[in-house]
Amino acid sequence: MDLYKKKTPNSKKFYDDSVKLFPGGISHNIRFFRPYPFFVNKARDKHLFDVDGNKYVDYWMGHWALILGHSPKVVVKKLDIQIPRGTLYGTANNISIKLGEIIKKSIPISELLRFCSTGSEATMYAIRIARAVTKKRIICKTIGGWHGFNTDLMQSVNYPFEIDEGVGMTGREGDFVESIPFNDLDRSIKLLDSVKDDLACIIIEPLLGGGGCIPADINYLKGLEEYCKRNDVLFILDEIVTGFRLNFGSVSSQYKLNPDMITLGKIVGGGLPIGVVCGKKEIMKVANPVENKNKEQLCYVGGGTFSSNPLTMTAGYSTLDYISKNRQTVYNKINKLGDIARNGLRKLFSDYGMKTQVTGIGSLFLTHFLSDKVNEITNANDVALSDYKMLAGYHFSLMAKYGIFFLPHKMGAISIVHDSKDVQRLINATEKIIKSGILNKRIKN
Amino acid sequence: MDLYKKKTPNSKKFYDDSVKLFPGGISHNIRFFRPYPFFVNKARDKHLFDVDGNKYVDYWMGHWALILGHSPKVVVKKLDIQIPRGTLYGTANNISIKLGEIIKKSIPISELLRFCSTGSEATMYAIRIARAVTKKRIICKTIGGWHGFNTDLMQSVNYPFEIDEGVGMTGREGDFVESIPFNDLDRSIKLLDSVKDDLACIIIEPLLGGGGCIPADINYLKGLEEYCKRNDVLFILDEIVTGFRLNFGSVSSQYKLNPDMITLGKIVGGGLPIGVVCGKKEIMKVANPVENKNKEQLCYVGGGTFSSNPLTMTAGYSTLDYISKNRQTVYNKINKLGDIARNGLRKLFSDYGMKTQVTGIGSLFLTHFLSDKVNEITNANDVALSDYKMLAGYHFSLMAKYGIFFLPHKMGAISIVHDSKDVQRLINATEKIIKSGILNKRIKN
Repeated sequence: MDLYKKKTPNSKKFYDDSVKLFPGGISHNIRFFRPYPFFVNKARDKHLFDVDGNKYVDYWMGHWALILGHSPKVVVKKLDIQIPRGTLYGTANNISIKLGEIIKKSIPISELLRFCSTGSEATMYAIRIARAVTKKRIICKTIGGWHGFNTDLMQSVNYPFEIDEGVGMTGREGDFVESIPFNDLDRSIKLLDSVKDDLACIIIEPLLGGGGCIPADINYLKGLEEYCKRNDVLFILDEIVTGFRLNFGSVSSQYKLNPDMITLGKIVGGGLPIGVVCGKKEIMKVANPVENKNKEQLCYVGGGTFSSNPLTMTAGYSTLDYISKNRQTVYNKINKLGDIARNGLRKLFSDYGMKTQVTGIGSLFLTHFLSDKVNEITNANDVALSDYKMLAGYHFSLMAKYGIFFLPHKMGAISIVHDSKDVQRLINATEKIIKSGILNKRIKN
Repeated sequence: MDLYKKKTPNSKKFYDDSVKLFPGGISHNIRFFRPYPFFVNKARDKHLFDVDGNKYVDYWMGHWALILGHSPKVVVKKLDIQIPRGTLYGTANNISIKLGEIIKKSIPISELLRFCSTGSEATMYAIRIARAVTKKRIICKTIGGWHGFNTDLMQSVNYPFEIDEGVGMTGREGDFVESIPFNDLDRSIKLLDSVKDDLACIIIEPLLGGGGCIPADINYLKGLEEYCKRNDVLFILDEIVTGFRLNFGSVSSQYKLNPDMITLGKIVGGGLPIGVVCGKKEIMKVANPVENKNKEQLCYVGGGTFSSNPLTMTAGYSTLDYISKNRQTVYNKINKLGDIARNGLRKLFSDYGMKTQVTGIGSLFLTHFLSDKVNEITNANDVALSDYKMLAGYHFSLMAKYGIFFLPHKMGAISIVHDSKDVQRLINATEKIIKSGILNKRIKN
């Protein structure tokens, strides 16, 4: 902590200014950490640079959005051309067709799609469409599932899951939301059965992202999907994190799933604000304002002022176009580095007799410190019972002492600008942290 | 219509592709118009350029966000520098302080603020905070008031106002929303009284934007504000459209209002995605995650992945900084041009014996064609009863024949790149349209 303070006097000054402007001094709750977050003024490739000139190898990567790293040349080049040609047309434009087409081509079920500006908007629209199409009201989500800050889905996100997500709710938002235990098919189906008659959709992340980097069991996903098909319920994969992260498109192809809708964000915006609702034509057509002329027919799926703005469309298209042409290299590389990181960390912690579980898939990974309360991580409840303070200490040490940045508590994302040396450095730094004794009061033999 | 089709064969082709991708071929419902919208591939200063090489003088101006026109040099220059330095830090950063400070300085009640990515998110957060602070549940909005596509405020937006805003709602969203008639203080107060005990806030646009470019009477706003102060209800001005549009800051200074919170968007993003919740410290502190450590205390005001991203912060700051240094020139110019446009159009329609009402304030204006059903425009209901088809025809003719673009039905916004010749051309074109007889079946003496 002292070392961090010594290295970040300018960040401290900026933070002092920042708390006078923003509640908690930040614009996103999770970006705060003690004693104060460092303030970034430059990012390039794999690095963040703070206002004190410190350099960090970034595994947070813009909330996991930056699969090509910060400001990759292929994106910068195209944005440089686009910026003097307009940042916000506010009209139909041809670049949005290019981004739409490349998404559609790589995700077969995205027969029709709608761009908006955030993931939170995308999931809100997806469930609105599901209610419109099924004429049923209940939305099912998983406990610990995170679909953004929209009021509709702010249920059972944070521990303790059964109480309201903060003050400022009416207490009635949950009347039409059913929360099921992640990765527990039997109990989930019992709960689904109890609301079956009014059940519009299940929305689920294939990997709990904010909830702790926990992949859903394939059989769990398949079981939920089958339940949906049997009961005229829509199955929605929220792939804001996983879309174009694990392969070029959706996990539905590699898992052999057939969702009715998919939500996207992050990567497909190429580092600029985006959300996307994709789905089968028969479903998405309820949002067509040309065919549905009145309120009794049309499902309002906005878009908003900034939807399909040419900067986001350009950044998103140039990112996907680049990956498309290099897809084998890209996913082979980052998925392999992910394996090396997970396995390397697992072996290391095991060698030192520390009870941890390194979760993740592909290029995403997170270390959980097990505790007396939990000895296996399968859902967000387990994560909440793990040793969160030790995780924060681990991440903080990586950042302060070794210039390796994970947002404390949050999973890391490997991008194509990371290499095996970075991963080795992460493992080496982790070993030094273990040896330093910072975490040692918990080391058991 | 034939002329438009002749001039836009490439747009037609793009539209044919677009309907295969997007419901209705667009990413925002209002961007569709018959027979198909033109597709923009470049915008600069006051002009939009479509894929057929047609050039339009733009009064839509990116949903009224672009007060300096498309891609102004002061913004382009700074974005060019920022783009290779990072588009999405995902962390605290110093540019957000600059934008926060200039907003705070110009809007005294914005003692604390939170950046998010869309106006729709900003209003959602504002009412969540109001509920949190007052511990009451009912939100009051005006009939025809438009606060974005969030589920919470999707009530009484479109005619007929009393039925649900489209399919896909549970039918219960309105349980805690009370809608009052815009500009009718007596009836509004009666309705407010009926829900007083559980009333958290009133949220109102100082000028109905999407609802038809109708300024609120100052006494109406003052009356609502007084009602709020008397009854421990928060008064929220939604200034997503009017903020920095009518003067350098909020209308609250010129109208001598003292709202508890203000929402911003559009202009303050400098052409990039933004939403802002501003408010008094005592109120906003409920969203401070450092002080409010648990769910029973904290009001979750997200921000989202893209909140305070350095591109938006840069574009917003360079826009406000430019205006700040030239504020007299900027507002004198655009407000005066607005007066010339409104007065010129009024005189013209009157000279031709056409019953219209040109509404607006400052640089915002819209012509309403009165009908047998309505002879004065004071609220969104009047707008719905006016001759909407004639308005669409008028705007379409301006676009197709004279290269002057208003999004059909929507108000126009003058930016600093417009000049008096543009306004004169608009008036001249309007006269030619009247004379052409396109609208003449309605001309009365």
